[in-house]
Amino acid sequence: MNERNDAKPCDLLIEAGWVVPVEPAGVVLEDHAVAVTGGEILAVLPRAQARARFTAAEVVSRPGGVLIPGLVNAHCHNPMTLMRGVADDLPLMTWLHDHIWPVEGKVIGPEFVADGVELSIAEMLRGGTTCANENYFFPDAQGATYARMGFRAVVGLPLIEFPTAWAKSQDEYFDKALEVHDRFRGERLVTTAFAPHAPYTVSDESFGRIRMLADQLDIPVHCHVHETAQEVDDALKQHGMRQIARLDRLGLVNSQLIAVHMTQLNDAEIRLCAERGVSVVHCPESNLKLASGFCPTEKLSQAGINLALGTDGCASNNDLDMFGEMRTTALLAKGVAGEAAAMDAGRVLRMATLGGARAMGLGEVTGSIQAGKRADLTLVDMDAIETVPMYDVVAQLVYATGRHQVCDVWVDGQRKLDAGRLVDIDTDALKAKAREWQQRIAAIRPPR
Amino acid sequence: MNERNDAKPCDLLIEAGWVVPVEPAGVVLEDHAVAVTGGEILAVLPRAQARARFTAAEVVSRPGGVLIPGLVNAHCHNPMTLMRGVADDLPLMTWLHDHIWPVEGKVIGPEFVADGVELSIAEMLRGGTTCANENYFFPDAQGATYARMGFRAVVGLPLIEFPTAWAKSQDEYFDKALEVHDRFRGERLVTTAFAPHAPYTVSDESFGRIRMLADQLDIPVHCHVHETAQEVDDALKQHGMRQIARLDRLGLVNSQLIAVHMTQLNDAEIRLCAERGVSVVHCPESNLKLASGFCPTEKLSQAGINLALGTDGCASNNDLDMFGEMRTTALLAKGVAGEAAAMDAGRVLRMATLGGARAMGLGEVTGSIQAGKRADLTLVDMDAIETVPMYDVVAQLVYATGRHQVCDVWVDGQRKLDAGRLVDIDTDALKAKAREWQQRIAAIRPPR
Repeated sequence: MNERNDAKPCDLLIEAGWVVPVEPAGVVLEDHAVAVTGGEILAVLPRAQARARFTAAEVVSRPGGVLIPGLVNAHCHNPMTLMRGVADDLPLMTWLHDHIWPVEGKVIGPEFVADGVELSIAEMLRGGTTCANENYFFPDAQGATYARMGFRAVVGLPLIEFPTAWAKSQDEYFDKALEVHDRFRGERLVTTAFAPHAPYTVSDESFGRIRMLADQLDIPVHCHVHETAQEVDDALKQHGMRQIARLDRLGLVNSQLIAVHMTQLNDAEIRLCAERGVSVVHCPESNLKLASGFCPTEKLSQAGINLALGTDGCASNNDLDMFGEMRTTALLAKGVAGEAAAMDAGRVLRMATLGGARAMGLGEVTGSIQAGKRADLTLVDMDAIETVPMYDVVAQLVYATGRHQVCDVWVDGQRKLDAGRLVDIDTDALKAKAREWQQRIAAIRPPR
Repeated sequence: MNERNDAKPCDLLIEAGWVVPVEPAGVVLEDHAVAVTGGEILAVLPRAQARARFTAAEVVSRPGGVLIPGLVNAHCHNPMTLMRGVADDLPLMTWLHDHIWPVEGKVIGPEFVADGVELSIAEMLRGGTTCANENYFFPDAQGATYARMGFRAVVGLPLIEFPTAWAKSQDEYFDKALEVHDRFRGERLVTTAFAPHAPYTVSDESFGRIRMLADQLDIPVHCHVHETAQEVDDALKQHGMRQIARLDRLGLVNSQLIAVHMTQLNDAEIRLCAERGVSVVHCPESNLKLASGFCPTEKLSQAGINLALGTDGCASNNDLDMFGEMRTTALLAKGVAGEAAAMDAGRVLRMATLGGARAMGLGEVTGSIQAGKRADLTLVDMDAIETVPMYDVVAQLVYATGRHQVCDVWVDGQRKLDAGRLVDIDTDALKAKAREWQQRIAAIRPPR
């Protein structure tokens, strides 16, 4: 009872059968608790000690659950969730030219973007994701939706060398980018990055401006790089060098670069990216579905490169399931490396959390369960037929756990999923809206 | 009201928003119903007609659901579910010699086998699987468990050229095989197959006896074939020919052969298998996890080979999730073929249903929703955030649907899963038993 007198108040105490903090690496804390106040993690400590040290306004206790950092989806085009499965099993160019672009041409605008992001947030939260690296048009509508719904995101400021519904000229893209960056400067959960589409759609001049502005504003540069062999071949013809060499010449191969896909890499490029602190986002299911190639994740990991994980858009995945993506990453890495020990479960969970946070410039904010970080947390129920027996908690998460086992989620200390139910989100209304878009989009598509 | 008078009684009418019969291929029936009596499918017809033609003792109506044939897991070692994740991320030989075999040496017996199968049946039913092609020791204990729990299975009669807890000599393997076959001859749901482990562990003489007996008894031969490049190289050294050539010389390359894995295949072998009517079972997640190689599924499909799908054992997967396996099959085939149109969703669903049934000699019994077949049926709820919008039902099943969306399952007309709840299975008792095995097995394992 003396202990009680010394107890410190806190907003929330989460007790779990296991806590996997991700940092330090390789640690699984049995029967631990996490104390949260003002959206910040105060302490990670054994359950018995937690009850003595803190008097919590709310206690959530899940002895059969594992607490992990909220998952970080480091590459997505979430408005495209409204185009989930709009065109599957088609050759890449047919998919893009006959389906994706014609649909986008007719629907893109702030309403489509906001509705798509809203649906995505619901799906992400239900699957334990708390942070997204967004890459699409109308970043203003994206950011407003993420902020309103209390979801952490980095919204990409798009740049592509042709006119779109978002901007008509290079100058307009840059003007709008700076406006959007400015608009979210004071925002708690939403920050920005430059998002030049890809080396093959962005000019040297634009990359030069991006390099300069990204330096000044201290924000990341989020870019598709070496997604397919074709684009590397084309770059050799057009520029006389591979795209990474070209980006390096333009001063962009540095620790601000979030390089997405990277299926085509030689050893020199891997060394260069490691030396410069480039982050690589792996999107295994998208790379498979579009037959883009295989990212050599085990080699990148061995080289010490910071790896992150992304779903890519729902038109090429077709979901926002980071548990599925972790599993595919661990499995595919072994097949590609020809080595069953490649990309173990611990490294893959790190990719899906801290790796993504660091890539996005949020390494001090989220991605691990450590005192001082914001409370982005995911509780996973392991008391299911599908996850018994359990010999290794982290391997079980990666190889046997489905996203539907996520039971509770907090973003910035706010409860977003409560025993499997979304808080303050009307799922019926979301589904109805998604089906309205389905009607509109189905009418645009060419017959198969 | 005249219609009412003509109405035929039936046990069960299942109404679904969509029925995907699998045969005929490519068909999606909107707003249809399936009438069942005595465990047999009577008719597949539009919902309005069904209500007029049948008076059902029970009606199950799911306007937001898709009815598909029960999934067929064409290669599993279900007792190993008790070893789920016992040793992950290890080189193949370390995994086998230091972990799997030492554990198996101490636990295998009828109790381990029965408990493992029981846990597996619960997991399979929850994920929409209604039929398993079993490959492990103690087929008597397996068969008894499948029969008792009312789950369709083909139990393999094991043969390996060294003594195990099941049998000590070649003669004992064969004697016991025939005894087990005899025991289940009158069984409604359980049949048998020969299950010689693999060409590298079975002698020419044993294969000769198997060929003869499989002909006499008219049962399939279920065998791991060309799982890794190493075993093909070894066969060249030992027998002067690849294993498929050796099996052909021994008379086993025919329509009774269920060849599992097949990651190493040249064009001549593909042609041979196509001409002879061999069925190939693809286990993509196991092949990836153990870095065994890539089965060229698109080439096999183009050659007209009957393809089936299996999870393999939970020590190398680590689940019995056929939805996950379908998704991995469709994605991986595209990456391996370098072609985004490879192995479309329809062909993959067929692998996971009718392809498996045909491989197992059950093509007239299960695997499709057709009048005259047994009612092995799976209803999947598509009214979820994760599966809206929906542009194509079959693609949505393969690319975006999780197994937890399975809501109702029937085996042989008997309800096994009812709105997500297992019928007559005590899941708490199953979990408790799995954890008891976990304690015993964890104590056997070497420290990592």
